[in-house]
Amino acid sequence: MRLTTLCYIERGGKYLMLYRNKKKNDANQGKWIGVGGGFSENESPEECLCREVFEETGLTLSSWRFRGIVTFVSDRYETEYMHLFTADGFSGEPGECPEGELAWIPAEEIEKLPLWEGDRVFLRLLRENEPFFSLKLSYTGDRLSKVTLNGKALFPD
Amino acid sequence: MRLTTLCYIERGGKYLMLYRNKKKNDANQGKWIGVGGGFSENESPEECLCREVFEETGLTLSSWRFRGIVTFVSDRYETEYMHLFTADGFSGEPGECPEGELAWIPAEEIEKLPLWEGDRVFLRLLRENEPFFSLKLSYTGDRLSKVTLNGKALFPD
Repeated sequence: MRLTTLCYIERGGKYLMLYRNKKKNDANQGKWIGVGGGFSENESPEECLCREVFEETGLTLSSWRFRGIVTFVSDRYETEYMHLFTADGFSGEPGECPEGELAWIPAEEIEKLPLWEGDRVFLRLLRENEPFFSLKLSYTGDRLSKVTLNGKALFPD
Repeated sequence: MRLTTLCYIERGGKYLMLYRNKKKNDANQGKWIGVGGGFSENESPEECLCREVFEETGLTLSSWRFRGIVTFVSDRYETEYMHLFTADGFSGEPGECPEGELAWIPAEEIEKLPLWEGDRVFLRLLRENEPFFSLKLSYTGDRLSKVTLNGKALFPD
């Protein structure tokens, strides 16, 4: 099992997105996602968040919201507990990211990018300003086979 | 690292508390805590919550709130990420618990019980109806040495 963070950083109606095209054997190859990564030993979710955002973007976060936990289960990868954040305060300017290309994408353009199916579910919850949520996404290969929100089945319903 | 849930179940101003006095080598021996336990494979926080509450109390939960995540770091135990819930809807009556004695304790009596120092911190946050929080509790032996709330040091400040 893996513990990770993922963060969508906002500035003036745009979100800092990462196009994953640099890592070998990257499960996210060719997809656009937020920035983040795996917990180091003894880290809290916020400590992992701030370290990963700094490592991947050069930005130092000063204001964030913890929005939800996403439990990913799949027949291909180990189970992942992803701690989902949005952030709207930071210092610095984005630099080069070792894992892909960073770009500020207007909020209304994000849906048109190549995304994981399940990411569309939590991006909608973020857009609708859902209170803290726990979302479980089950994948069979690349296909989203089951979605559970706060313990209740959303799909198939 | 361990992932766990802990739940405080409420009924008419009382909370279902567990006095841990039955398990051998129990880190919680002699302490009063809520009910819960470790994640099984592929479980979401809610799945672990409902299974553990049923196993330990015989109650089936129907209404709960996910209140926070507590990161426990200590020089004795492996790092634990505890998913903290309160619940106010259930069916059934509490039965025998294999891990200790269950008792409904009036809210105002809980502070007088033998509790972990850090539990007093999150019980206060629950009482004050704090929005979803991330609390990091660092222990040196049985002594609480550092408290961080949502990434900001509370103690020592």
